[in-house]
Amino acid sequence: MESRRGRLHPAVARTREAVRAMLADLPRDTTVLVACSGGTDSLALAAATAFEAPKLGLQAGAVIVDHGLQSDSAQIAETAAEQCRTLGLDPVHVKAVEVGAEGGPEGAARTARYDALRDAADESAADVVLLAHTRDDQAETVLLGLARGSGARSLAGMAAVAGLLRRPFLELPRATTAAACVASGLRPWHDPHNDDPQYTRVRVRHEVLPILEEALGPGVLEALARTAGLLRADADALDMLAAELAESAVRRTDDEVHCDVGVLETAPDAIRTRVLRQAALEAGCRATDLTAGHIAAVDALVTGWRGQRWIDLPQGVRAVRRGGFIVLGIDVTG
Amino acid sequence: MESRRGRLHPAVARTREAVRAMLADLPRDTTVLVACSGGTDSLALAAATAFEAPKLGLQAGAVIVDHGLQSDSAQIAETAAEQCRTLGLDPVHVKAVEVGAEGGPEGAARTARYDALRDAADESAADVVLLAHTRDDQAETVLLGLARGSGARSLAGMAAVAGLLRRPFLELPRATTAAACVASGLRPWHDPHNDDPQYTRVRVRHEVLPILEEALGPGVLEALARTAGLLRADADALDMLAAELAESAVRRTDDEVHCDVGVLETAPDAIRTRVLRQAALEAGCRATDLTAGHIAAVDALVTGWRGQRWIDLPQGVRAVRRGGFIVLGIDVTG
Repeated sequence: MESRRGRLHPAVARTREAVRAMLADLPRDTTVLVACSGGTDSLALAAATAFEAPKLGLQAGAVIVDHGLQSDSAQIAETAAEQCRTLGLDPVHVKAVEVGAEGGPEGAARTARYDALRDAADESAADVVLLAHTRDDQAETVLLGLARGSGARSLAGMAAVAGLLRRPFLELPRATTAAACVASGLRPWHDPHNDDPQYTRVRVRHEVLPILEEALGPGVLEALARTAGLLRADADALDMLAAELAESAVRRTDDEVHCDVGVLETAPDAIRTRVLRQAALEAGCRATDLTAGHIAAVDALVTGWRGQRWIDLPQGVRAVRRGGFIVLGIDVTG
Repeated sequence: MESRRGRLHPAVARTREAVRAMLADLPRDTTVLVACSGGTDSLALAAATAFEAPKLGLQAGAVIVDHGLQSDSAQIAETAAEQCRTLGLDPVHVKAVEVGAEGGPEGAARTARYDALRDAADESAADVVLLAHTRDDQAETVLLGLARGSGARSLAGMAAVAGLLRRPFLELPRATTAAACVASGLRPWHDPHNDDPQYTRVRVRHEVLPILEEALGPGVLEALARTAGLLRADADALDMLAAELAESAVRRTDDEVHCDVGVLETAPDAIRTRVLRQAALEAGCRATDLTAGHIAAVDALVTGWRGQRWIDLPQGVRAVRRGGFIVLGIDVTG
């Protein structure tokens, strides 16, 4: 942790500063848990939290999720738990989960993990779970969102603070957590999944980002992470304004959603289309099936009205213009 | 243009449909000019426009810009002009320009080109200049914007309609314009700059996009172009709302800009930071020097006030909190 000349290694200092800043608003005696896999990022987070939490009067424990995806996963989890105990974290939860199939391998593992984190927080009466995602993870998330092409929200990456979860390392490069582990003599576990090109995220990390840095310059990771933060703020503002507009523009009946054309047509495109999207979801469309193309077609009933017939949406929902309203539901054309 | 069986080639049909849709709102006898380099995209655009404009009662000409960047550039421009005349376009302007150095080689060429297009439009009393940018160009523009990391506007790509300029091919793949040229027997000029890796855009085209498609799937170009459209709408809405908020929040004196903290602090982050950015520009900062970091520091004077000193901004501008106002200007701390 300290160099031969007795000075704190700058990487260790940066991880500690990031944790301190993220915990500064918590009242004394709050319990925080570090989600730790034993990998580089989360081991550095465990060490920094074990150091900083007591100084802030906080109780710091850890939670290790055993996804059961490798034959030796129980042993790996136990090693990580032992490292957390050695760092002084208490309590240390080990949670074995079963990964389902829904949402693909990455999505299913994520769902199981977050459920386990919430359970552990409940058991310890913890108000905060710290996650070790770095700036590199954030940049990868933005690029994965690009492929979806569904606008600001899909490019907004991960939030620094989201309910129970906080991500103190979201502006730190992965190189800093790696250097902090080396400087602190910590021996991280190397997850073989991190090199398995069957995962899209691994291909983005090892194939896309290096080429992007070569073509656009070394600042591109930072730019991607900064973009995420700016677009998150944009999406938050527009979602809020859309919810406000919906208050006056949208009425629900038992099985239909009615949108007032007169109120919607003067709103900016970005807000009007968000109201229509939300109305389609309330009428029964699934978010994952509803495309920007669907919403554009519904929007044309508002802004390009020339007597079109109904618009077919996912899950059997239809949108139709009836008088001064866009009506969405299953039987609206019956 | 027509296959042996006498049917219109689908690529030619798509280029014509795109041009027709883009010109449909113009009154008869309007003059439109096609900006043509003689390359694949703009030659396909020239052919489609020559075919569609007369049917809509429009006058269609062309403008060829000779950037003088190659020894044979005058000859290349003359060949393109001759191709346009053969297609029936009239008048055909050839504009020789001098490319300066400001803004880098690509930026300087772009500035000179747009000036020449405007001049040609003035001379022909044209209301519209058509540009041949494709969906591939749009995707490249989005990726180039990612590297800037300055939020929605830098990812918003090119507008389909912007003043004088219209881009009918913005949703067409480059493969379509290439197929249209082959089907029509047009012989495009191949610009060697399009293969020169000294240009960032060329590296994005030939190195980044293929890797991105391989990692994320073949829909990524379409997703990037769709993202651009959605983020453009977001940025337009937020800029408009920020301008509205500035009406009540911002007052100008001869050499200072005053922002009312009480009005700003209840606004969403995305709108408040846009007002502050605009205020900094009005106080004398240059857009290219003003970073998201600068604006975050000024914003902290509003939302995280704890008696900070002034914030130094580019071009010697400072921002300081004075009573209930953020004051921006050169001498605000004097």
